[in-house]
Amino acid sequence: MGSDLGPSEVVAAAKLALDEFPDLSPLTLVGDEALLRQLAQEAGLAGHPKLAFFHASEVVTMGDKPLLALKRKKDSSMARAIELVKNGEAGAAISCGNTGCLVGAGILKLRTLDGMDRAALAAVIPRANGHFVILDAGANPEARPDHLVHNAIVGSHYYRLVFGVERPRIGLLTIGTEEGKGNTLVTETHEMLKRLGDLIHYLGPVEGFQLFADEVDVVVCDGFVGNICLKSWESLAKFFVTELKAGLLANPIRKTGALLVRGAFTELRDRVKPERYGGAPLLGLRGNLIKAHGSANRQALKNAIYDASEMIKTNLTRHIEADIARANDLIGLVAR
Amino acid sequence: MGSDLGPSEVVAAAKLALDEFPDLSPLTLVGDEALLRQLAQEAGLAGHPKLAFFHASEVVTMGDKPLLALKRKKDSSMARAIELVKNGEAGAAISCGNTGCLVGAGILKLRTLDGMDRAALAAVIPRANGHFVILDAGANPEARPDHLVHNAIVGSHYYRLVFGVERPRIGLLTIGTEEGKGNTLVTETHEMLKRLGDLIHYLGPVEGFQLFADEVDVVVCDGFVGNICLKSWESLAKFFVTELKAGLLANPIRKTGALLVRGAFTELRDRVKPERYGGAPLLGLRGNLIKAHGSANRQALKNAIYDASEMIKTNLTRHIEADIARANDLIGLVAR
Repeated sequence: MGSDLGPSEVVAAAKLALDEFPDLSPLTLVGDEALLRQLAQEAGLAGHPKLAFFHASEVVTMGDKPLLALKRKKDSSMARAIELVKNGEAGAAISCGNTGCLVGAGILKLRTLDGMDRAALAAVIPRANGHFVILDAGANPEARPDHLVHNAIVGSHYYRLVFGVERPRIGLLTIGTEEGKGNTLVTETHEMLKRLGDLIHYLGPVEGFQLFADEVDVVVCDGFVGNICLKSWESLAKFFVTELKAGLLANPIRKTGALLVRGAFTELRDRVKPERYGGAPLLGLRGNLIKAHGSANRQALKNAIYDASEMIKTNLTRHIEADIARANDLIGLVAR
Repeated sequence: MGSDLGPSEVVAAAKLALDEFPDLSPLTLVGDEALLRQLAQEAGLAGHPKLAFFHASEVVTMGDKPLLALKRKKDSSMARAIELVKNGEAGAAISCGNTGCLVGAGILKLRTLDGMDRAALAAVIPRANGHFVILDAGANPEARPDHLVHNAIVGSHYYRLVFGVERPRIGLLTIGTEEGKGNTLVTETHEMLKRLGDLIHYLGPVEGFQLFADEVDVVVCDGFVGNICLKSWESLAKFFVTELKAGLLANPIRKTGALLVRGAFTELRDRVKPERYGGAPLLGLRGNLIKAHGSANRQALKNAIYDASEMIKTNLTRHIEADIARANDLIGLVAR
């Protein structure tokens, strides 16, 4: 039913996406149908051939607990959108809602792909000369080595889809890049990743100090480390901007200067704020699911809609499943 | 023998510390004695009553492996400085050298305090309205719950020493602050920390997004998570500054503005760059040991010298040992 900015922002995003991308997959808005139809009419989208509506009477809130929400709010917009994917009526679902509920509902309703036990949330982060993707950003806090190997595969596919890089550089996040350093999970994962051969472009272990330099495209870690990193980076960026702002307003001369350089700050803020990026896909499921930021604006949501459309068109899940099967063979993993 | 800036920077730091702090503990410079004596003379420190020298013929380099360096370079300045602490000839040792070697040598030569199995590296990080300390920053990448409980105790003591806060707020770094979220290590640690009662001011679990706001003083985590966080924050700060700089030089108007606001950038850079902070102590050993940043300048080293002096004067290790004994009683940990 929408981000913190409400359902009208979602409708505005639909309008932007439908206008900008003529080849976009058809779009279904899930939620309070009467309200959505009214907002669509106001946005000039009434009767648009690619726009449909699906009614859902409930909304999952930020305070809901994942399992309870799934049980008690069977007619939530989140649950209904995922069910459309499950039933083949939609190729992808996008939600700005409660991450825990979305991850839980996605895994329970869509289930993981053959050969995979866990799904991973992938987040796009700006760095020198572009972006990297870190995964898992929080879906699976207690990962096994094979889960991390799967993260490397799905991350590689996702980076290729979003940034058009044929062989993205994959790094395993650790401390100390000499082999054998890190922890048991990383050491075992590293041995498995080396066995994948040409399936991915595996660089080896990477350290925290390499992330924001242009050294690695896909950063593989467990959901505990990934979520802490992601949230602490947002916190640090906010701190940085706040401190700088205070410094720029400290005296009249600086205030004058600040006016002249304002554009540089706007550019940087736009570049580092998470709202800029469409969303974080939950990869490894039998269907496409994107978690958009809670405060996503129409631009961010438009990007998420475009990404979802590309996932459908490129058959992302099938390609992932094929590579997972090959990877499991190479690492000697027997399907359970 | 000194930071990347060489032994003359260490001598300059000794001069600054001896001049600024009349109550400073006596100082011994460990390394190439002839060179150090010459540099001290040039700095006007010849015959200073609080300055001594201890000769060491070797230097541990950044490329050395911890265990090999300990075996092969028995007369390194790093090993000798730690031995002075072990033998009671010094109350604390400071080194800018190879972190892995320093942590290894510190643990092997000084050994952990009674009741503790692991030492933790504590790093001071700037945040809104002050600083937080994160530990472990990399000494113990595979921690047990009792190790994290000990991190909370030693971190509390260190924060009090450096920032004069009587009851620093302790947070357990995790994902999702509801009880039960996170991973097994965090869940078990949380249960133990709750049993400590008034021994520390335990806030409960904290998430990444809280770190750079003024919400927590001591952030407890394992050395894997802590080291990745620390290094990725340095990487992000560097990226941020580089991007901003490029934006500020993008056109003549911004260049003019940039000159007017230069002071704000210098202030922020000074505030966020790690060189500003004296060093990261390795806490939990039978003696005080401080790892200074590899690129530490005289100001940073002066601060490290002052911190070391305060550790000695306040009997930091004895207070820690007493609280560890009480904590072990409360969590039911039997000494091994």
